[in-house]
Amino acid sequence: MNDMSAPPYKVVGTRPVRPDGVDKVTGKAVFGPDFAASGMLHGAVLRSPHPHARIRAIDTSKAAALPGVRAVVTGADFPTLESLTMALGESSGDVLDIARNCMALDKALYEGHAVAAVAATSTLIAREALQLIAVDYEVLPHVIGIEEAMAADAPVLHDTLFTKGLDATPDKPSNVATRFVMANGDVESALAGAAAVASGRFTTAPVHQGYIEPHACVASVNADGQTQIWASSQGAFMIRSLTATILGMPISDIRVTPLEIGGGFGGKTTVYLEPVAVLLSRKCGLPVRLVMTRDEVFRASGPAPGSVVDLRIGADKDGKLVAADIEFRNSAGAFPGSSVHATAMCSLACYRIANFRVTGWDVVSNMPSSAAYRAPGAPPVVFAVESALDEIAMQLGLDPIDLRLRNAVRPGDPGPMGMPHGPVALVECLEAAKAHPHWTAPLAPRHGRGVAAGFWPNYGGQSTATVSVAEDGTITVVTGSPDIGGSRASMAMMAAEVLGLPYEAVRCIVADTASIGFSMVTGGSRTTFATGKAVVEASEAVVATLRARAAAIWGIEDDAVTWQGGAAQAAGQEPLTIKAIAAKAGQSAGGTIAAEATVNPLDYAAGLAVHICDTEVDPETRQVRVARYTAVQDVGRAIHPSYVEGQMQGGAVQGIGWALNEGYVHDAGGRVANAGFLDYRMPVASDLPMIDTVMIEVPNPAHPFGVKGVGEAPIVPPLGAVANAVSRAAGVRLRDLPMSPDRVHAAIAAKG
Amino acid sequence: MNDMSAPPYKVVGTRPVRPDGVDKVTGKAVFGPDFAASGMLHGAVLRSPHPHARIRAIDTSKAAALPGVRAVVTGADFPTLESLTMALGESSGDVLDIARNCMALDKALYEGHAVAAVAATSTLIAREALQLIAVDYEVLPHVIGIEEAMAADAPVLHDTLFTKGLDATPDKPSNVATRFVMANGDVESALAGAAAVASGRFTTAPVHQGYIEPHACVASVNADGQTQIWASSQGAFMIRSLTATILGMPISDIRVTPLEIGGGFGGKTTVYLEPVAVLLSRKCGLPVRLVMTRDEVFRASGPAPGSVVDLRIGADKDGKLVAADIEFRNSAGAFPGSSVHATAMCSLACYRIANFRVTGWDVVSNMPSSAAYRAPGAPPVVFAVESALDEIAMQLGLDPIDLRLRNAVRPGDPGPMGMPHGPVALVECLEAAKAHPHWTAPLAPRHGRGVAAGFWPNYGGQSTATVSVAEDGTITVVTGSPDIGGSRASMAMMAAEVLGLPYEAVRCIVADTASIGFSMVTGGSRTTFATGKAVVEASEAVVATLRARAAAIWGIEDDAVTWQGGAAQAAGQEPLTIKAIAAKAGQSAGGTIAAEATVNPLDYAAGLAVHICDTEVDPETRQVRVARYTAVQDVGRAIHPSYVEGQMQGGAVQGIGWALNEGYVHDAGGRVANAGFLDYRMPVASDLPMIDTVMIEVPNPAHPFGVKGVGEAPIVPPLGAVANAVSRAAGVRLRDLPMSPDRVHAAIAAKG
Repeated sequence: MNDMSAPPYKVVGTRPVRPDGVDKVTGKAVFGPDFAASGMLHGAVLRSPHPHARIRAIDTSKAAALPGVRAVVTGADFPTLESLTMALGESSGDVLDIARNCMALDKALYEGHAVAAVAATSTLIAREALQLIAVDYEVLPHVIGIEEAMAADAPVLHDTLFTKGLDATPDKPSNVATRFVMANGDVESALAGAAAVASGRFTTAPVHQGYIEPHACVASVNADGQTQIWASSQGAFMIRSLTATILGMPISDIRVTPLEIGGGFGGKTTVYLEPVAVLLSRKCGLPVRLVMTRDEVFRASGPAPGSVVDLRIGADKDGKLVAADIEFRNSAGAFPGSSVHATAMCSLACYRIANFRVTGWDVVSNMPSSAAYRAPGAPPVVFAVESALDEIAMQLGLDPIDLRLRNAVRPGDPGPMGMPHGPVALVECLEAAKAHPHWTAPLAPRHGRGVAAGFWPNYGGQSTATVSVAEDGTITVVTGSPDIGGSRASMAMMAAEVLGLPYEAVRCIVADTASIGFSMVTGGSRTTFATGKAVVEASEAVVATLRARAAAIWGIEDDAVTWQGGAAQAAGQEPLTIKAIAAKAGQSAGGTIAAEATVNPLDYAAGLAVHICDTEVDPETRQVRVARYTAVQDVGRAIHPSYVEGQMQGGAVQGIGWALNEGYVHDAGGRVANAGFLDYRMPVASDLPMIDTVMIEVPNPAHPFGVKGVGEAPIVPPLGAVANAVSRAAGVRLRDLPMSPDRVHAAIAAKG
Repeated sequence: MNDMSAPPYKVVGTRPVRPDGVDKVTGKAVFGPDFAASGMLHGAVLRSPHPHARIRAIDTSKAAALPGVRAVVTGADFPTLESLTMALGESSGDVLDIARNCMALDKALYEGHAVAAVAATSTLIAREALQLIAVDYEVLPHVIGIEEAMAADAPVLHDTLFTKGLDATPDKPSNVATRFVMANGDVESALAGAAAVASGRFTTAPVHQGYIEPHACVASVNADGQTQIWASSQGAFMIRSLTATILGMPISDIRVTPLEIGGGFGGKTTVYLEPVAVLLSRKCGLPVRLVMTRDEVFRASGPAPGSVVDLRIGADKDGKLVAADIEFRNSAGAFPGSSVHATAMCSLACYRIANFRVTGWDVVSNMPSSAAYRAPGAPPVVFAVESALDEIAMQLGLDPIDLRLRNAVRPGDPGPMGMPHGPVALVECLEAAKAHPHWTAPLAPRHGRGVAAGFWPNYGGQSTATVSVAEDGTITVVTGSPDIGGSRASMAMMAAEVLGLPYEAVRCIVADTASIGFSMVTGGSRTTFATGKAVVEASEAVVATLRARAAAIWGIEDDAVTWQGGAAQAAGQEPLTIKAIAAKAGQSAGGTIAAEATVNPLDYAAGLAVHICDTEVDPETRQVRVARYTAVQDVGRAIHPSYVEGQMQGGAVQGIGWALNEGYVHDAGGRVANAGFLDYRMPVASDLPMIDTVMIEVPNPAHPFGVKGVGEAPIVPPLGAVANAVSRAAGVRLRDLPMSPDRVHAAIAAKG
């Protein structure tokens, strides 16, 4: 499915072995929990057993006296919120919440909320010390569910939280942080005139990002405040910035070294442990390691928000969508911030709809503070929209792909953020899906087939890269973007392509925060695009230097030298290879051949995906089995096609888990009842068929090789695709995720 | 003594606390032997007990079978010399020697020469395993001394060594690697007409650099060949390059992280352990640490060459030098390379002499291969020249400073390398010495006063630096130059000066070889000059970006914006601080504010030093005590005066040790008899008076702040200054170093 008009690349588009692969399969790679520093202590975090409780007092004296304990910290060791507010000014809100999430101050806001931490000579001693910390709790009424939290009589988490975005300023605090509205045209009139209207309430559960590697870090603070942190995360600069801000330190006093990351999916774009580890190390003068257990990961990190979505969507008799009215409520967890803007923006972005009103509510409750998860905010609302489109197609007797093709956005159409859509290839994706053998394959008994589309705007943002030429002509590429999905390989490939060298001549390194310029997190599907752009620009600067060096050697003008096949070329001259030029670098006044590029691209291109799913519903257990799955996606240009396919497959699988299996379960006491991989059931390889992938390459003109972000879009369609398949297989619309056997059974039974 | 015409710097010239100081005094700094990697093994090296022996066979089977042993390597595990020669071509000589010095192949060439190495789960097991390695040696006759090694019937170390630089190609191998001749005018005629001639033979012993920290490294090789090395050295890029070349690896496959260095003085500008550790790690797949004992440091690293110098120098009756004839022989140790070019170049560089002939011989013998040591090659020959000048002054009844002033080189005079001298300030130094109270202070009984001058050409070379602005406006400076003498502080100071910020706002980091562009070793007095130049250029580029950002914010031309006091300024605008501009970086298309600069300055400025020394000779023991010492030096511009003074004092002390105490002692079997700090006596603080320092600041126009290298020059004069003082105190010329009590006694006794 490659675009045959693509230039004849030599490296881009091939599938070399990833440079970190051998380390990872041989167990040598150093992930967060693997790193050790000389003289390191082991920390442990005491967490609230109550979902909502006032902390009257904490007595750490017995813990501090336990032999082997070297430091104890509580919220009292953090800078006060007042001092942070003063230092940060108006924009302090998010950081204050992150600070309070790292360590409770006056209240524990969810079961698992950190209230104290200990560093000791062994993990066993540290855990023993936790039991010696006496916390005087005043247990408060708690609230978990979204609608319960929005109720007028709900226990209020934050005395200072007044709903933003309302027409009038509220006179009392509530659990509703924000109302966000996006609207156009006359929705009610258009719906009234529609030939078909689908409506209903759709719900999704909070789900965890489910990365295999728990959060972990080592911090080491010197007597003069200089601080090193080694951590696994999606962005070492994010850790540096948040830790410095929360602790009131100059950013340049902190150096963060990224370790290998065992999955993040958005859940490692904030800090939990790092400021705590820094405070512990500052107190005792030794490096301190903090590692979450799996139980802690579930109770105190992530999850993605759950949601309740009400919608009405109408179409004319030809299937043209005329209006949509959506009201969604996202569960932010203990602190505000459930991506309501992104939820609204992505909800209808795939389609031309003249009249719409999208209202979003950001709601806090006594759950862990929600975190980003692939395409944050998009999957639940798109699940509702794509379910509704399926109903409209059924009402009008249309092929569901044809319905979507009739309404699909084209380049230049108005986009959800006020700017026109860029080079969106939704039509191409839908046509490829329709042409795929899967779409027309006969359905076995009890099988249903669903289709759904999804949109993610993608993102650019700040990245820095350096490219340097060693004395033997081999190349090192340095970025500040942690390698999650194979970016070391794709960065090396882009550099090799520009330099005209084989992939093997280029090594890509992820550097620490001191050793490379500021780079934003690996997330939002920005890395191959933005960091890749920096790598290409730095590589081009290196080529310019190489040409100038060759010109100087030959005594001709720079412009007379071209660069081809890893060598300088000029009329009447023997080509000068990069190796030959590098060997002479010391003889030039310029010396070292290296270049740095910083980028902050503001022009980027959305990712579009269309998924087809076949499911079988077991007639006795009502368990749903995914029988066949095809993911089609507009990928711009696949630098390393295997990793693009991996993103598509991984997104599909995580979306399938969200649709069928996953979800936090709370007991009556507001405690998480399934905080482990045994009870929190994520799909594994044996649960699923091979996910077929179809890459549509419509290049992004804002990137030198045409790259579009590919990591978020594939998690957007699966919830709808699976739900549509199950609904068609079961003969009844399934509106609540996960579609666990009991729910499927209840829906079928209710239908009768 | 500051140049009062210096611009009004705010940071340059102050004396802030060094950023690595707290770590170093609290024991937290990680030096070579401190670093540990997860799963690390401990290595040990088997060394030849014979100074010269053919290795018939090595049986490592018993060692390999010892429980806990994971890898054993011998010379057979290295690439063959033939393959290296093929890969490297004509310029392979030095690297082949370094490779053979890391591990003996067919012959052990000195006592301590590595013949095998083991990696095991503990150091004890590794050392036990060494005892199980059976080496079948054929002991050969050995030779240690320079003249013995040059004798026609001497045992020859290398069958392939044919003297270079002779008029005719020799027909058989010898221990003389090179003859180097530098000549001008008619020496014999000029000497014949001289009013005063001083002549004689002067000798110096091989001395060790005497760094406190032994050589140490950890290497970790992955299954696909990617290699990490953590090591203490004067240059991580040097380790990367030499290790890759010796082992036939692509340079980009190796990443070297510099650890703190506990002294180098030139002795850590080559590899001993790193290629061995890499081979061990490659065999067992685990990280391997190798650390030398002090005994191994003495027997298998360094030393600086010993020398035998014959000279004749003549002056006319007014003290004008008319001719010099010098023939020196340097002891290179087991492999050629005793800095004969530098020795010749520095020998007469302080003075205008129309007629000269300098002949140097590079001689191998069964000692450890010599290594660089501050101002490599210069101190011994300058000791001879400055002793001769003292004799001429005595013969002519001239003040020894006046004699030197009469002949001192001035800027623009012909220099020793064919180029004219740059901004040399020898006259200023001599005048300052003459004006110093020390020079005219009365001499106590049995005291003598000596003076001597010294020259080092200094060096520029390749350096890279990056300067980046964090989100809060704090600054990180990154270089590839290990910090030996306080360069983190001086780099931060230069950046702070350019950026108009306080010193505390800037942190300087020494990065690994992947994270910064190529940078040569910290050595040759090049770092503050060349790396500093890169830091200044990168800082200036950052200022240009900051001005452009401010211009964009204000909507005016870049040129209308000036940068003062850490803020952008323009007519009619409130100044924009770096903090304010940094906070908006993400809103600009350029994003991150950072810049990289690479430099390779070919224009640099020599360092000149004049030292005055008072000594007292004990009438009974003939032990020499240094009673007073003053070091005057042309330092260009002192960025951090305390560290410049520290270089001057350290060089003086090391030179005093060379003059009075230090020297390898070999037993009849060719083994080092004093391989430890107890028997190899270096001066300690209690042995010496405070070294007084006088900085002469004559700026170097090739550096933005006027920096000249200051690390080498101060070790050049002390040998002559001390010897002249002792000779005047003893009433007899001392021509052999060290001037140990027995030698002083013998000289006085011979005089009668």
